[in-house]
Amino acid sequence: MQIMTEQDVVDQELTEQQMLDFISDMFMNQMPFNDLLGMRITGYTTDSIELRINMDDKLIGNPIRKILHGGVTASLLDVAGGMLVAAAAIPQMDIKSADNFHKNLKSLGTIDLRVDYLRPGWGDEFTATAQIIRSGNKVAVTRMELHNQEGVHIAFGTGTYLVG
Amino acid sequence: MQIMTEQDVVDQELTEQQMLDFISDMFMNQMPFNDLLGMRITGYTTDSIELRINMDDKLIGNPIRKILHGGVTASLLDVAGGMLVAAAAIPQMDIKSADNFHKNLKSLGTIDLRVDYLRPGWGDEFTATAQIIRSGNKVAVTRMELHNQEGVHIAFGTGTYLVG
Amino acid sequence: MQIMTEQDVVDQELTEQQMLDFISDMFMNQMPFNDLLGMRITGYTTDSIELRINMDDKLIGNPIRKILHGGVTASLLDVAGGMLVAAAAIPQMDIKSADNFHKNLKSLGTIDLRVDYLRPGWGDEFTATAQIIRSGNKVAVTRMELHNQEGVHIAFGTGTYLVG
Amino acid sequence: MQIMTEQDVVDQELTEQQMLDFISDMFMNQMPFNDLLGMRITGYTTDSIELRINMDDKLIGNPIRKILHGGVTASLLDVAGGMLVAAAAIPQMDIKSADNFHKNLKSLGTIDLRVDYLRPGWGDEFTATAQIIRSGNKVAVTRMELHNQEGVHIAFGTGTYLVG
Repeated sequence: MQIMTEQDVVDQELTEQQMLDFISDMFMNQMPFNDLLGMRITGYTTDSIELRINMDDKLIGNPIRKILHGGVTASLLDVAGGMLVAAAAIPQMDIKSADNFHKNLKSLGTIDLRVDYLRPGWGDEFTATAQIIRSGNKVAVTRMELHNQEGVHIAFGTGTYLVG
Repeated sequence: MQIMTEQDVVDQELTEQQMLDFISDMFMNQMPFNDLLGMRITGYTTDSIELRINMDDKLIGNPIRKILHGGVTASLLDVAGGMLVAAAAIPQMDIKSADNFHKNLKSLGTIDLRVDYLRPGWGDEFTATAQIIRSGNKVAVTRMELHNQEGVHIAFGTGTYLVG
Repeated sequence: MQIMTEQDVVDQELTEQQMLDFISDMFMNQMPFNDLLGMRITGYTTDSIELRINMDDKLIGNPIRKILHGGVTASLLDVAGGMLVAAAAIPQMDIKSADNFHKNLKSLGTIDLRVDYLRPGWGDEFTATAQIIRSGNKVAVTRMELHNQEGVHIAFGTGTYLVG
Repeated sequence: MQIMTEQDVVDQELTEQQMLDFISDMFMNQMPFNDLLGMRITGYTTDSIELRINMDDKLIGNPIRKILHGGVTASLLDVAGGMLVAAAAIPQMDIKSADNFHKNLKSLGTIDLRVDYLRPGWGDEFTATAQIIRSGNKVAVTRMELHNQEGVHIAFGTGTYLVG
């Protein structure tokens, strides 16, 4: 995948796919902590997101029960919500200029996050998904879910994000 | 520091300090993810906790702004709350047997966590503290705070934990 | 509807329907604040709940916009969650004695509640529903929704309840 | 107390006290639900708020235990947070025109609210207070507390509000 430089971003109008690719690159390749967790994107449009991680010894939060650390769950859900908020802003941009897009991304931030831990984080692979429940030009709210590879529902999340 | 084996735990009555040491060892040495984040305990009694981490490239959540990943903040606050809940249960144990203590620890778990991100996570060292706001024989609730080395208040947390 | 007295409750085994009727009576007829809001039950089983209120001048939270007060929304969602938690405990009772049932109800309480206000509370009639997302013998967690008579989604809720 | 008409508001520059009086009037006299609960303001500056209600049969949420309904608690905490956010915006207004002030008030709204119920709501009089923990030109976050007349701490709240 050819990733735009920041220079490119400033110089040209962008397609929705280019913007999604740019956000993907930013979250997966330029945020060391997401890389450390082994996050990867397995689905991403302007109204959906799917992130996955594999279980790994270093992600264990409880040595006896061998379950995912609650902080890993929180991290995954927060990233899923944030990436979806960034994507959902794309169709609403009046002018899809690189400049506008970049400004949007810069102001994106988590205001608050609630995680409901439903079941122990057992599994080999975990999938995080998100949906927008409130959108606006200042604030967006998302709900997120974490499941393991057998479809067991491990956690719910609710995130409020600053946008625009 | 000489850490008890599980065998020791079963065989003897325990002092409060022994129990605090045991919890400390469990969270810091036997939970790989806490070790990965570089967490260390700088204060721990039955009614207080102080955890610290140093900033590190791998913990960055935003490459341009060089700030702590929101998931690291959530992880630290969750661990601070959970460790305090475990410690606060000690004085309330009728019989301070290893058995009772071990049972308490086994049932400990986060039910829900809210993080309020107040300011960008800039800094060299971050300190998490917690206080119990509701205690009970089934559920405990804590409030947590994260500050950087200059005392800048970066995040608030609220956690509900299953106990006993 | 013939409602049991507390004496009845102590003296006999109960059917699921009797228990649901008892909870309904308790929430709707014996909690003055629910009556003040005009709450009524339009659906109630051991795994579902539907509560309704009509818009009324006294429930207005904003005189210019004529929308439902956020506190009314919170009240409805909290009651919906609590009533569902009480109902969901019924099938899990080993012995469906009046005594066990009464003990369950007495220990029921809200630990924490999150409300996400999605859209202004416009409408003539509002419907609250709930679902259990975590059940247990100490704690249950529910998600709730509030819609108006046109199906507009006004609010989400998440509640953690003490049980058993 | 002489309350400004909307016409007055449009025609003149306002002092901080005039704006506080205007907000007080709006919340206490023009929001029927706050009046229904018997809310009154016992302290209000640009960085503090104190609201009180007396216990009343109609506010009871549990007939046996005679405690405050959790929805009343949520309502009080939400209003305390919202009024403080409105007040805290005053010193930050570049031009203290009636127009700017009015626009601020119109956009004020609760995005999300978390209530932690710490102890049963026993008492004759309840006092809600709030503090700003995050301020901004788009979003503000507050923490709130509810105590009874003996200083017993009954509930904590955390609210995220849309501003500006």
